[in-house]
Order: sequence, then structure tokens, then C-alpha cells
Amino acid sequence: MERVFAEYLIETPYDVGQAAAVLAGEQSSGTFVAVPGETEELKQRFAARVEHIELLDLVNEPSIPGGKISGKKYQKAKVKVSWSIENFGYNLPVLISTLQGNLYEITQFTGLKLMDLELPDSFKNHYKGPQFGIKGSKASCGIGCERPMIGTIIKPSVGMFPEETATLVQTLIDAGIDFIKDDELMGSTANSPFNERVKAIMKVIRNNEQRTGKKVMYAFNISDEIDVMQRKYDLILQEKGSCAMISVNSVGLAGTKKICDNGQLVIHGHRNGWGMLNRHPMLGIEFPAYQKLQRLAGVDQLHVNGIQNKFWESDDSVVTSIKSCLKSFLGGNEILPVVSSGQWGGQAFETYKRTQTTDLLYMAGGGILAHPMGPKAGVNALQQAWEGAVDGSSIEETANKHKEFAASVKKFSK
Amino acid sequence: MERVFAEYLIETPYDVGQAAAVLAGEQSSGTFVAVPGETEELKQRFAARVEHIELLDLVNEPSIPGGKISGKKYQKAKVKVSWSIENFGYNLPVLISTLQGNLYEITQFTGLKLMDLELPDSFKNHYKGPQFGIKGSKASCGIGCERPMIGTIIKPSVGMFPEETATLVQTLIDAGIDFIKDDELMGSTANSPFNERVKAIMKVIRNNEQRTGKKVMYAFNISDEIDVMQRKYDLILQEKGSCAMISVNSVGLAGTKKICDNGQLVIHGHRNGWGMLNRHPMLGIEFPAYQKLQRLAGVDQLHVNGIQNKFWESDDSVVTSIKSCLKSFLGGNEILPVVSSGQWGGQAFETYKRTQTTDLLYMAGGGILAHPMGPKAGVNALQQAWEGAVDGSSIEETANKHKEFAASVKKFSK
Repeated sequence: MERVFAEYLIETPYDVGQAAAVLAGEQSSGTFVAVPGETEELKQRFAARVEHIELLDLVNEPSIPGGKISGKKYQKAKVKVSWSIENFGYNLPVLISTLQGNLYEITQFTGLKLMDLELPDSFKNHYKGPQFGIKGSKASCGIGCERPMIGTIIKPSVGMFPEETATLVQTLIDAGIDFIKDDELMGSTANSPFNERVKAIMKVIRNNEQRTGKKVMYAFNISDEIDVMQRKYDLILQEKGSCAMISVNSVGLAGTKKICDNGQLVIHGHRNGWGMLNRHPMLGIEFPAYQKLQRLAGVDQLHVNGIQNKFWESDDSVVTSIKSCLKSFLGGNEILPVVSSGQWGGQAFETYKRTQTTDLLYMAGGGILAHPMGPKAGVNALQQAWEGAVDGSSIEETANKHKEFAASVKKFSK
Repeated sequence: MERVFAEYLIETPYDVGQAAAVLAGEQSSGTFVAVPGETEELKQRFAARVEHIELLDLVNEPSIPGGKISGKKYQKAKVKVSWSIENFGYNLPVLISTLQGNLYEITQFTGLKLMDLELPDSFKNHYKGPQFGIKGSKASCGIGCERPMIGTIIKPSVGMFPEETATLVQTLIDAGIDFIKDDELMGSTANSPFNERVKAIMKVIRNNEQRTGKKVMYAFNISDEIDVMQRKYDLILQEKGSCAMISVNSVGLAGTKKICDNGQLVIHGHRNGWGMLNRHPMLGIEFPAYQKLQRLAGVDQLHVNGIQNKFWESDDSVVTSIKSCLKSFLGGNEILPVVSSGQWGGQAFETYKRTQTTDLLYMAGGGILAHPMGPKAGVNALQQAWEGAVDGSSIEETANKHKEFAASVKKFSK
């Protein structure tokens, strides 16, 4: 029978084998005492199995405070656990409850993080995965493998009227942008009701498409309750838009999948709230596991932060995240990594050096709109940066060649 | 204009006022440089406001590793922030993205936890809240304020056939139970397809109702994708069931609300995965805020762990959680606290002493099924425990009075 595998980073003051057995028990048949009905045959078939244990460091202090036991050291380890597909069938929420449920409560652990997961091939018959993914997203804007999609976020996040936003969209289109998105804080505000915003912006985008043949992708933030999301999705379709954005953690996996299942718009997945799930090194979930769950839901594009970002995340973590998005999963489309946070083009060099890919949506907010020579120069500077990065030029060489990028370096580099 | 308030526990190596201002900026109009269009008027209307700062301890090490700055100390503080309702209207996911979004990524913080939130009264016109809550749940099983609902979980969690489960349900009903639930790992398994399980169990429950007039509440775990959840909900209704269970974190808030909005079944909210969101004292969300979000979604019953539980959570935290469920919120129904994890009746005394309430669903798994005198004695022992607790008797006095509870004490007390 096919099995689902999950890899955890754990920490425990107890014997690792015993702690892992508690995890496996709690997440299949456990209660705190043996009960009638738990036959050996039933256990064989439905009990989770500890497949592999690899001991790592021994540390003096528990990673999660509160679990301290006087005189004890804390063993870190990688633990691989498996479940029979018979336990849950193809039910994403029950899979989550099994892989990320009560096990975080287990007192034997002073740290537990889901690092990765492997699903049997049969999942591909039940989950279509991203309908557009990398290729579909780039093709929709007329971009191939030569460079990333260049995108930006409407700022100020909240407060503008639809007509002001549409004017800004026109400016950004004239500047040569590929992709624009609502901020995740922008749903439907007093000044910018969703329907009016979509209509005002799509008019600009359609006009531009007629004139130039290029259709800029705009990710309208449809995050809301299920029925309202569907209505917003339908409006975007009706207005000939190509993309909708969902704050995947705020909406939740079931709601996200429900919308993705429509299959007619590219879904831009915003991971705001991610720090809560990931910021502690020994609690929560790592991105390689997380992006697989989002792919099962059908998300096409997913935020990965950026090199030298303004947030807390390390460059190593960003690079791992990008690479995980580019890996094949269940034979479906890859998910487009959305690079953002404090990006202005200077980071293109390190990003390309470490990932060797242009299959990115590279987002700059202030880096475009606050460019000293204006937004068009801002977009040009980003394109120049990526051209330089792919050619193997340095930041300095690229700045010497292009005045727009040189102005970015002067304004934004620290 | 009405405002939404959120209270955070934060930690920062920087000036608290400045760090709080970064939070407010990031969560309303922020990018890393000023952009055109951010007028003073727009800021006044849409910017988040830091309402109050209360300094707490100064500590030597950052709570979230990775944020260490040589020679710096870390200031803990309570910070209250507010937003105008104009920023999001009545949109739960955008509210979450604002209160629990990118702010966890902010490098200025080495700890950030959402402690509580306050919503304006107008929310009650847009969110019905729990349709049954405490009173509706207890009334459905014919119980008033004299004692908690006594409940149990079907164990083994996974592996039994529907007929075996139905037989166990009959045993538990004969034992005098009020409430039974699926395990959160049990959705629709190879041995126990959802539809067959519902039909087999509801037949037993309906027969018992005809015979005795008492309708036992069974929480069928409908957690799944949206359309499947709705079909499962409808089947429970058709079979005259009274309750459905949702793993609220695995399904997500939008999906949970969609199902709750049906309003015909009591919704049992299981919070598995909670440890990931809450276990670190300086990261994530505290239960008083969390239960309000679940009430907005319409959940009627919500897990709170239990006194002297088998998990990591402290008794103080459990007591705070129970009390928060009993507080009024937007004039709607209160949410029934579901006490569970290693409960056998002995904890009833401390639970009642510290909360002074019987408005609980008191769950015991092994405490009933593994009772040495059988399940009926197990249920009796729990009722005896609660009678003793409410009367002000001690564990010893209650054990001296009742042989079933005495047997529990002998088997389960540590």
C-alpha cells in the first residue's frame, strides 16, 4: 500500500526513538492508555511508522522555553515518519491534521518542525496542481526564459481611489512592467471598492493590450470569504483579467483550493503570516514542505522573500525556497517563486548566482516608484540588472553600462 | 470612524516606540522608501496608530534566535495598535492579513505575539457568531447548568469498521455519555468511509433517542475540501445528526465560516496544529484572540486542552482559555470550551475551582473506555467527579462516596 512520508526536525530531552514513537502513536492510534479494539493487525495496517532517525547536535537549553528538565541535555534529530494512504485517502485537511496536528503539543518535544513531505504518485490523479505555474505565468505576459517577470506592488497599500490606482497602473505599464499586484492589506476599502478598482484597472490594461499586444498581469487581491471570493474571481474573468491573488494563510487551504479549482485565472499566492509558522528555527514548517501543500491546492505563484530582504529571513533560506519551487512535484507544473521585499535590482546578481534561474517573478515596490529618474527608469534598471546578472557582469560593470541602473545603485545600495 | 484594536506582546533590541511605528507602517501604508501619493491626509485616515505602549522586562537574549545584536538588550512590551474599519470593511481574511500578516517578518522584533483584539459593534451586523454556542449545545443533549456535557473520542482513532464503531457508540450511549466525536485523524479511511460511518452511527443514535428521548451528540469529522465538506454536512443533516467537527486550522478560516454559515448543525471546532501557532511564548497568537476569530467564523465549540493535560500547556493557560470562551463577544453566543487531553475526572475539581463553571464539554477518552469497571462506570465516575467538584468536595471525599470514581483514582491518578 502507498505511503505518505514526512521529515521532521525535532529536539527532545528523552530518548529520540521513544519520542519519535510517541509522535507516531499520537498521530495514528494513540490515547494515553491502551484501549480495547487496538488489535495488532489494525496497528500494522494503520499505525504511523518511524522510518529513519538521524541524530544531530546535543544542546544544553531547550529551544522552546518551558520544557526545561534540570540536568538534561536536548538531542536534535531528523526523524522520518510514514503513514499508509489508507489513513486519509485524498483529503488535504486531514493530511494536514495528521502531519501538522497535535504533534506540536507533545510534551516530549522541545522543538518540532515539518521539513519536507513526500506523497505517492497516485496524488496526481486527485490534485491537478498549478494550472499555469511558471510557464503559463510567463507566457501570459509574453516572456520566455531570457529574464524574470518584473513586477511591482501598488503603494500606498491602502488609501487611493480606483481612478488614482488606474492612473498609476497606466504609468507602470508605460514604464514597461510585466506584473502588478494589490497589496495584501488591500481588499475592498472605503476609498477603493473591489469592483470599481477592477473595472478601472482592467480598462487600462485592455486598452494597452489593444495598442501594444502586451497584456500586463494584475493580481487583484480577492482574499475574502468563499462566496465573495468566487464573485470577485468571476468579475476579474468578465473584465478579461488574468490573475487573482489569495492570502493563502488567511484564507486557508480548503478555501484556496476551492478557488484554484476554477482553473481560469493564474493564482498569485501571498504567504503573509508566514513568519508565525516559520520564524523559529525549531517550530512550525519549512518552505519545501509548505510549497508542496500550496501546489496541491493549485497555487501558481508563491512568495519566497528575496536576497538581502528587509525582513528577518536569511539569504540561505530564500535560496532554498526558490530551489524548492523549481523542483518537479507529482509531475505537475512548477510554482513560480515570487521574489520581493526591499528589492531594487542590486540583488539580481546574487539571486542569479545562487539559483541560476530566470524563472522568477521579481518584485520591486519602492525600487520602481521611488527611482530618482521615474518609474520607467526604475523598470529599465531592473531589466538591466537581470541582463547583467545573466551575462555574468558585476553590479559595477552593469552600473557603468546603464545610467538607470547606476541611479538605482546610488539611491538604494547600502 | 470605528476602529479595530489589537494588542501584541513584542520584544525588540530597538526603541520600542520606533519598532511599534514600523509595525504600524508595515501593516498599513508601508514600503521601504517613501513613494509619491502618500499624502498626509491619506495617512491620517488609513495609517495604523500605535495607541499604547507598556514596557515590561528587559532580557539579555532574544526570544527568537537569529535576531541577536552584540551588546544589546531586548525590551519586552505590550503594544496596542488600531486600524480604521475603512481599511478592510468586514472581510475576515484581510483582517487576519492585517493583524497577523507580514508583521511577524519584521526584523526589528525578536518576538511578537497577538494577545487579544477588539472589534467595533458593527461587526455583529455582519457576523452571526456561534449559532448554538454553549446553551444550544447543552440543550441539544438535554443538559442545563447543573453539570458539563460529558464526552468521549472514538479510539482507536483509525482502523475500525463502521459497524464496530456503531457498536462502540451503542456501548457509550448505554454508559450514559452525552457527546461522542471522531478523532481528528479520522476523515474517510479505507475501513471507515464517511457515509457508511455516519449511517451506521446515526441509526444507533436515532434508535436510542426513540427509546429514551435522549439524543446523543456525535461530532462527525467533516474536515475536507469545501464541496465535500458541504456534502458531508448535508448527509449528517439527512441522517438527523446534530453536530459536525471541523479541524479549523487545517481547513482554514474562510472554509470554516462557509460551513458554519449553514447554521443547522452545531460546529465542533478542533484546534489541532495549535501548538505551532502558540507554543512559543513570544511568537504567534494567544487563545483569547484566537477564539474570537473562531467565533466570527461561527464555531460553536472549541478545544481548550485540559488541566493537568498530557501535552505541554500549563494549567494557567488552560484556565485563561476557558474564561475567554465564557466572555461575551459582540453580543453573540458564547463558545463552548472543550476540555480534553488525559482527562479522567480527577481534574474536575481543579477545573471547577479555578473556573467556577459547568459550561464545558468535558472529554475523556481512555478515562472512559479503559475504566477498570467498564465504560458505564467510566461515565459515572466523570459525573460523580463533577458532582463532587461542584459540591465543594475533595477528590478523597468523592472517592469515598463512589466506587466508580474510586476506581478511576486508583487507575489514573499519578
